[in-house]
Amino acid sequence: MTNTPTERMTGHHLMAETLGQAAVAWHTNSRHLLLAGKPATKWLEKKSPEMPTPAYVYAGAAITTQVRTVRAVLPATIQLHYAIKANPFAPVVRHLAPLVDGFDCASLAEMQLVADLAPARLTHTSIAGPAKSAAEHRFAIEHGVLINTESKGELQRIADLARTAGKRARIALRVNPPFELRGSGMKMGGGARPFGIDSEEIPALIKDIQSEASFHTALDLEGFHLFAGSQNRDAGAIAATLEQSLALVRDWTTQTGFVPQHLNLGGGFGVVYHPQDTPLDLTALRPVLKRIGEIAQGAWPGVRVNLELGRYLVASAGIYITRIVDRKKSRGKTYLLCDGGMHHHLALSGNLGQVLRRNWPIIDVEHMDMPGIETVDLVGPLCTPLDVLGQNQSLPHLEPGDLIGVLQSGAYGASASPQDFLSRPAPHEYFILD
Amino acid sequence: MTNTPTERMTGHHLMAETLGQAAVAWHTNSRHLLLAGKPATKWLEKKSPEMPTPAYVYAGAAITTQVRTVRAVLPATIQLHYAIKANPFAPVVRHLAPLVDGFDCASLAEMQLVADLAPARLTHTSIAGPAKSAAEHRFAIEHGVLINTESKGELQRIADLARTAGKRARIALRVNPPFELRGSGMKMGGGARPFGIDSEEIPALIKDIQSEASFHTALDLEGFHLFAGSQNRDAGAIAATLEQSLALVRDWTTQTGFVPQHLNLGGGFGVVYHPQDTPLDLTALRPVLKRIGEIAQGAWPGVRVNLELGRYLVASAGIYITRIVDRKKSRGKTYLLCDGGMHHHLALSGNLGQVLRRNWPIIDVEHMDMPGIETVDLVGPLCTPLDVLGQNQSLPHLEPGDLIGVLQSGAYGASASPQDFLSRPAPHEYFILD
Repeated sequence: MTNTPTERMTGHHLMAETLGQAAVAWHTNSRHLLLAGKPATKWLEKKSPEMPTPAYVYAGAAITTQVRTVRAVLPATIQLHYAIKANPFAPVVRHLAPLVDGFDCASLAEMQLVADLAPARLTHTSIAGPAKSAAEHRFAIEHGVLINTESKGELQRIADLARTAGKRARIALRVNPPFELRGSGMKMGGGARPFGIDSEEIPALIKDIQSEASFHTALDLEGFHLFAGSQNRDAGAIAATLEQSLALVRDWTTQTGFVPQHLNLGGGFGVVYHPQDTPLDLTALRPVLKRIGEIAQGAWPGVRVNLELGRYLVASAGIYITRIVDRKKSRGKTYLLCDGGMHHHLALSGNLGQVLRRNWPIIDVEHMDMPGIETVDLVGPLCTPLDVLGQNQSLPHLEPGDLIGVLQSGAYGASASPQDFLSRPAPHEYFILD
Repeated sequence: MTNTPTERMTGHHLMAETLGQAAVAWHTNSRHLLLAGKPATKWLEKKSPEMPTPAYVYAGAAITTQVRTVRAVLPATIQLHYAIKANPFAPVVRHLAPLVDGFDCASLAEMQLVADLAPARLTHTSIAGPAKSAAEHRFAIEHGVLINTESKGELQRIADLARTAGKRARIALRVNPPFELRGSGMKMGGGARPFGIDSEEIPALIKDIQSEASFHTALDLEGFHLFAGSQNRDAGAIAATLEQSLALVRDWTTQTGFVPQHLNLGGGFGVVYHPQDTPLDLTALRPVLKRIGEIAQGAWPGVRVNLELGRYLVASAGIYITRIVDRKKSRGKTYLLCDGGMHHHLALSGNLGQVLRRNWPIIDVEHMDMPGIETVDLVGPLCTPLDVLGQNQSLPHLEPGDLIGVLQSGAYGASASPQDFLSRPAPHEYFILD
């Protein structure tokens, strides 16, 4: 990508270029948004009164492209996991199963999804979460899922359940590191945190697990889960955190003699949501990842080192499509009223952790080559001023019946939104292979 | 209520007193949270491994009390409607049906709920929403539901659908007033808004509806819907807005000769969520409401004037109950990790329109008479730093297995939350009659 950010964002045709290679797969060589080679309007049966909008559409080809992009900077010594929470839509997870080396889960239902769609992957699957239920522990013990434990109390509960089940539990220690991932959208480490075990307590806990019968008779300690932040687009900060994480593990193994078989270094690779943002320079991570793989394999031969990516693999592969229902002016401002809104796409409305709402890339699905000629506010159907899709956004002239597409909507969309709000219909979700 | 805010908030036993009479109905004369006269722990079957938490519990008696409190300041000339969007749980709506004079809906599903639970109330029901679907218009026309129309374009679509159905549509004009409700949590009027029709366009639109055949052959214009803001605890501001709204309508009727049969003056009565907030002084509204009723009936004899309240009728009647799963310290801070969180209660986490998160009233369900003795952070089970239930909150000492209750959780709770987030279980919902 040699264009400047300004050039890249001129016109709708070029917009997707800022959003990584995956998004480009959506619509090259066409003024229409193409889904699997056909204009989106064909799929969405525009003329039908029962047209299936609002809808999320996820492109398998875009996911495949993005996985390849990541693999290109990963050495063979580092595995790639998919964090299902980013998008648990079954066809997405099924599509990813042969492309990644394992899954990371955040709930019983996510583990059950792996059991349904890719049962052979359960032993390459982990679960994390600060308040796991006994049902989650039991399922993980039963199916050989690695449990990222978050406190000594949780270790005790897991050991008790494992003994009851007559099995051993596979565990890793989730660590609250002494540092945070600088500039992360979501801070997950550094200072006091509800996630994981404070890093300074790890050496003593390793010794306890090795020495106390209540632990070592029931638990197999395989390694560590270190995750300092997410949604970060600063390759230097990510590299520094990966190096710091590895250094921490080396300290512990030196102190305790414990040899890890497993190391989850998190990820935190950030995605561009706003035209003015600079994308993560993935290639800058290549030498760091290579060095980390070499050091880890040198220190603990055969250790499974993995990155856990969710958003970064699927965000650009998803588009949220909504139809204009009404167009009106109020005291000089033009509003486009849409059939979709915050109940389907909470992050778009600025209510998923954002302090200030910023505009997302939105395209006119049928005229992607047309420049913006008017400034409009896009709002959803809910009777609340929170239901905002776009503010002072430049778009071609749109009328009721026209379709808009919100790019970068493949992660934390439908599943992270209050779908029952005002008892309106759920979004449709489609997966297209090519 | 003669206590000062400070006194009222001392200790858990007194906490509910700040939250209106309804909340007091929860637990007088007991150190335990009582639900229908029994300790909450009995209902929640504490000893069972399949205990039904997290749960929302709504108390019918508390709703009844709150309706009576409102009726006490309403003259017979003003009707009381319930805005279903605040809490669409079927038993809540069924309980309210004989207590209120009508319902206000925000979706097809909400109208269908009225059709299922209280079909005789459909002609005392309205629907509002800036981007209604054709299905919503058709249902309203078919069942005689009053449609609050939000643009001239919508009027045309309704007229076309009514002609197709061979029926007349009952409509009101939703107005974007030239003023806002001062100090509202949610501004719904004043300036440019997506909601309603700018007030300055109303007289001409009334004349169009009266004179244009495409309108007057299909539409029965019954009146107006004016709603300038919600979640307001300033009785003076609410009174001023009610008076301004009535004055607007009088201007239009003078200008056009139109005689309204219907007038929805909104509501916007605010609820206390945070201990330091001052409750709305409802009794201060009594003379204003009396005067408005008299003026309206004098000007347009027989006119139905109604207030539309949602949150104010049900917020204090609901408690969200969650169980402590783990207790841990991280770098000096004590965390209580709960089985419920932001996926059930988005507003509690500070992600439903709030700019800054503030603490809600949280009680120890089994020791309501015990003072707070430690400062803790309460977090939910999700792997995100957004999943916060309480920050630096003072509570008695709580251990895993203990239950906490979040008061004031009867409105915009379960239905306004991203229940599928991380694919975790939905909350249980219970309605108890007494």
